[in-house]
Amino acid sequence: MISTDILRRLAETIEARKGADPASSYVAKLLDRGLDDILKKVGEEAVETVMAAKDGDRLHLVREVADLWFHTLVLLASQGLGPDDVLAELARREGISGIDEKNSRGAGQ
Amino acid sequence: MISTDILRRLAETIEARKGADPASSYVAKLLDRGLDDILKKVGEEAVETVMAAKDGDRLHLVREVADLWFHTLVLLASQGLGPDDVLAELARREGISGIDEKNSRGAGQ
Amino acid sequence: MISTDILRRLAETIEARKGADPASSYVAKLLDRGLDDILKKVGEEAVETVMAAKDGDRLHLVREVADLWFHTLVLLASQGLGPDDVLAELARREGISGIDEKNSRGAGQ
Amino acid sequence: MISTDILRRLAETIEARKGADPASSYVAKLLDRGLDDILKKVGEEAVETVMAAKDGDRLHLVREVADLWFHTLVLLASQGLGPDDVLAELARREGISGIDEKNSRGAGQ
Repeated sequence: MISTDILRRLAETIEARKGADPASSYVAKLLDRGLDDILKKVGEEAVETVMAAKDGDRLHLVREVADLWFHTLVLLASQGLGPDDVLAELARREGISGIDEKNSRGAGQ
Repeated sequence: MISTDILRRLAETIEARKGADPASSYVAKLLDRGLDDILKKVGEEAVETVMAAKDGDRLHLVREVADLWFHTLVLLASQGLGPDDVLAELARREGISGIDEKNSRGAGQ
Repeated sequence: MISTDILRRLAETIEARKGADPASSYVAKLLDRGLDDILKKVGEEAVETVMAAKDGDRLHLVREVADLWFHTLVLLASQGLGPDDVLAELARREGISGIDEKNSRGAGQ
Repeated sequence: MISTDILRRLAETIEARKGADPASSYVAKLLDRGLDDILKKVGEEAVETVMAAKDGDRLHLVREVADLWFHTLVLLASQGLGPDDVLAELARREGISGIDEKNSRGAGQ
């Protein structure tokens, strides 16, 4: 079984890229470019996720979701946040009101 | 520390909603509506993530990323996939060529 | 031939909805809800445009692009802008450096 | 007053790029790359439109909407469609049931 700790290890590696030479790595360059460029990548990967799913290409879909999650980790890091913040929020929802908590927020349009 | 097993627990709960009465829960309804509606939600949450980040609202950002990850879990489940597939892909990239593997794919545009 | 003045007529109608009773029309309600809700609709219609194109459904694609253009008109109106501003920008690019002006901005990644 | 015929002139120029040497222009290259790359650009410009609006930067917003409309013209051309198809759809809605026709489709969520 794959350890879900991979999210934390990735977050630590991303954190270590902050302030590094932009030429040294993809993440260092992206962090150096700033929020707008990170957000463009998040939007881009979301669109690619949609397209892979429409193609019914499961292998491609896994890769695009991985890209999407990865770039949200970069986004979180750029704002002083990490995967534990998101996991805690997901656990909070599950704990308080179950997986369907969204419904109670009227988000189930 | 928050257990990252939350992703697996959520995936199991989503899996259990498959084929359930659409009126019984938000996830059952979304799965019943099908792929296009799930993808619309993924796109919607990605845009809301971008907007929360632009607002500089960290609490809101965490919630939107949680929404985005959650709906990608629903998407994965709808295609017979789960978080372990994505985590394995992220681990594979880390293992083989490091966090900067994207670069080698020319995706670092 | 369809008059392209339809964009201006739509913009005038949207303009007339500003400050109207939100219950009186879809546009009045959307303008009343504010920028974030308008932007969510723009993002949503963009994703639906992508999905219609992936389906190869040309009739659906036309409808989704119409939705997308329409909601960008609402967005422009909400910011004190209109279709002539966008058409002037497109004409400026065509006039100065041709349709391929984007290239010169390095946007043709 | 800017002639809205700019949309048709752009569409004609885009049409003329079909089958041209991909190295000859941005549009020829994009058309040559195919649907997925065109859709990525549509998604990308939609996200940049959202970001420009959040910044409250009206000049930037006009440019991003111009980019978005332009790339939807390329998308339409790639599918054998053009701006008149979209304008006719917008005129049809206005003619039949007014600008608020969306409401009657239940799309006014």
